[in-house]
Amino acid sequence: MVIVGGGFAGIHAAKGLAHLPVDVTVIDRRNHHTFQPLLYQVALAVLSPADIAQPIRTILRNQPNTQVLMDEVMDIDISARTVTLCSGAQIPFDYLALATGATHSYFGKDEWAPLAPGLKTIEDATEIRRRVLLAFELAERQMVEKGWHPPLNFVVIGGGPTGVELAGAISDIAQLYMRSDFRHIDPSKARVLLLEGSPRILAAYPEDLSAKAEAALAGLGVEVHTHTQVSDIGPGWVEAGGKRIEAVVTLWAAGVQASPLGKLLGKAPGVEFDRRGCVLVDEHLNPDGLSNVFVLGDLAHFEQDGRQIPGVAQPAMQMGDHLAKMIAADLKGAPRPAFRYFDKGDMATIGRMQAVAKVEWPFKAHMSGFPAWVTWLTVHIFFLIGFRNRISVFAAWIWTYFTFTRSARLITGDQRLPGWQEQVSAGPGNETSRET
Amino acid sequence: MVIVGGGFAGIHAAKGLAHLPVDVTVIDRRNHHTFQPLLYQVALAVLSPADIAQPIRTILRNQPNTQVLMDEVMDIDISARTVTLCSGAQIPFDYLALATGATHSYFGKDEWAPLAPGLKTIEDATEIRRRVLLAFELAERQMVEKGWHPPLNFVVIGGGPTGVELAGAISDIAQLYMRSDFRHIDPSKARVLLLEGSPRILAAYPEDLSAKAEAALAGLGVEVHTHTQVSDIGPGWVEAGGKRIEAVVTLWAAGVQASPLGKLLGKAPGVEFDRRGCVLVDEHLNPDGLSNVFVLGDLAHFEQDGRQIPGVAQPAMQMGDHLAKMIAADLKGAPRPAFRYFDKGDMATIGRMQAVAKVEWPFKAHMSGFPAWVTWLTVHIFFLIGFRNRISVFAAWIWTYFTFTRSARLITGDQRLPGWQEQVSAGPGNETSRET
Repeated sequence: MVIVGGGFAGIHAAKGLAHLPVDVTVIDRRNHHTFQPLLYQVALAVLSPADIAQPIRTILRNQPNTQVLMDEVMDIDISARTVTLCSGAQIPFDYLALATGATHSYFGKDEWAPLAPGLKTIEDATEIRRRVLLAFELAERQMVEKGWHPPLNFVVIGGGPTGVELAGAISDIAQLYMRSDFRHIDPSKARVLLLEGSPRILAAYPEDLSAKAEAALAGLGVEVHTHTQVSDIGPGWVEAGGKRIEAVVTLWAAGVQASPLGKLLGKAPGVEFDRRGCVLVDEHLNPDGLSNVFVLGDLAHFEQDGRQIPGVAQPAMQMGDHLAKMIAADLKGAPRPAFRYFDKGDMATIGRMQAVAKVEWPFKAHMSGFPAWVTWLTVHIFFLIGFRNRISVFAAWIWTYFTFTRSARLITGDQRLPGWQEQVSAGPGNETSRET
Repeated sequence: MVIVGGGFAGIHAAKGLAHLPVDVTVIDRRNHHTFQPLLYQVALAVLSPADIAQPIRTILRNQPNTQVLMDEVMDIDISARTVTLCSGAQIPFDYLALATGATHSYFGKDEWAPLAPGLKTIEDATEIRRRVLLAFELAERQMVEKGWHPPLNFVVIGGGPTGVELAGAISDIAQLYMRSDFRHIDPSKARVLLLEGSPRILAAYPEDLSAKAEAALAGLGVEVHTHTQVSDIGPGWVEAGGKRIEAVVTLWAAGVQASPLGKLLGKAPGVEFDRRGCVLVDEHLNPDGLSNVFVLGDLAHFEQDGRQIPGVAQPAMQMGDHLAKMIAADLKGAPRPAFRYFDKGDMATIGRMQAVAKVEWPFKAHMSGFPAWVTWLTVHIFFLIGFRNRISVFAAWIWTYFTFTRSARLITGDQRLPGWQEQVSAGPGNETSRET
């Protein structure tokens, strides 16, 4: 059994297979599993990368039937039943599970990527952290040297859960955590703009929660612009709704597409993809006609009750668990059980103390504000892999929330921001803030 | 008052000046102060960067008379009393303190730098971590694909405290922390070589402690080679003592030189430098003839009782404190007190449970083994800046020491090691380990 991808789906599949008489090989090009729901807290300097990431081989170290390879799959030969690694070496399989997830989609405008990073990996998170923190440092420096600075506009593109969490957290940093640290700029005058093309943010949530989220963001000072399509992005600016907005940092949370690995299945007849490149799978998580190939997690397009189930952690975990059950059935000669997503609900935080939650289990409810945030906190601490991580994350949260000090406020890497020099050379303009 | 450098000396100077009627500007090209004595624990995946680094402006946030600039000093005009920043802007000063520390010295062989990184910054530490962890991953991958791998030789050049700590910690990782994680390689068969040109390691320590350190390292399986000069370094190898040693990772702990900023004082007549580029200072920490310029910490060459005081944390802190006392004296019109280094002792850890310590205060003693390690532990937790860091570091240590799991084992950045491809292409040779 070869599992490609060590995200929620891959790890749950491997763990489920621990006690079955199968040899499991987990292949991932990174050495670590990332707890993606908390990635935005690394990006905004609350947590350290190691708080939410753990080596895949450490997670699976106590399973003698499992080996882990840090490697990249370049090709899949379905009839020969091998995957080809980047060195050219081939690994044979009888069962193959693809769980390589999704990546950012810039809708064909890949030149936007360096200007507006997205948030999928630890490297993405530290890059966003570097840019956000550096913006305040460069503004302070510019004030001392020239007496003015370009406006501190942070533009977040995309009003899904990631965009909402990023916008709320940037506002928190500016309003609460930076206020005593600077002498020449007023971080609380930073503007956070959340741009969403559709009529409302959190479009996958019920309308009342979208409205509550928008109100909560407005309360934090985030300017939410719905019906606002981004037409262009440049160094230091975003063009949206026919207007050019100066932007000291631009973040991308607008689109995802399937990992390109799925396309390698396209050589088999019958395998179908949706417009994001996700592989259409049946109730056994198989693409059409391939009963020994499974597609799990964000890479899979699975429809239930006429709707595609969302690309979040819960379905991925459940698909991983289900794969193990199906293999167990195969080994017993029993028919494979059909997959059914059991939706416990969905939630997104908004800044420091608020969240919205659509609870489906153990009761049905729409929650918002502080109660939703406490629920979010409990669930996320509970699901964090590793006891030490839980303690460390909890300590960091307590510390951060009570002292207004973020302990992971490190700028590493270089000291440049795209567009900063252009904005500085252009000099103080109409939009420029002047502070004492 | 302008202080350049936010290390131990600069931070202590700024803190000492908190309640004096002076305007303090601290300039550092990084946004964070690094607790350098624990940097090797970040390099070897015990601690996270944020555990030992804190934003300088957060450390000094409660001092209204102090501003912090993340910027780089490019020039100093002593007669005009200004420092020039990289943007060309000039900051005036009446007093100037230079505390920019030291950096690696490759003795003119700067081409060795990418092949054998040293350990001075957070970026250095994560790069070393990347290389050490990646070596094991690549070896496992190579075993699966080809059935052999280049020998896992880790070569540490330089037997001072940093070299000893790195060698001991790599041995720990290989012997203890990796053992259940791999299926095809035996991490405990990794070799760690510590190369020292002089007759003994820890040359600044008493001879009995050097001998004990060497014995402790041997007990951990580290091969200590004294009298061994490195003549060349290439991708995947080190040439030392007339022999070429294969090296999957090479680390540099052999030489330091003063930060180049000190040389900017050389335009003033009378200012002298030692062979490392450190600025010779008198008992008021002034270079000859410059009573309003102070040089602190590793950048200063200060002699006491006929010997240069060492470039470690303690003298740097004391110099910073002393600077504040001298400024206070100036403000009162009193004569400046003379600096005298009060040596409390020195220590270096050797792996997981041992250390050597030369204690000078509150009693005089030579300690080694476990008692020295407990002393080291206590002192380092006590001096760590920030309460949350102390809790977090302590939790990480407890977790690591009892579970044999290192929680910060992340590989970020790219997946290449210098020389790996060459070693792999050369194929299994004499020195190559074959394992099942």
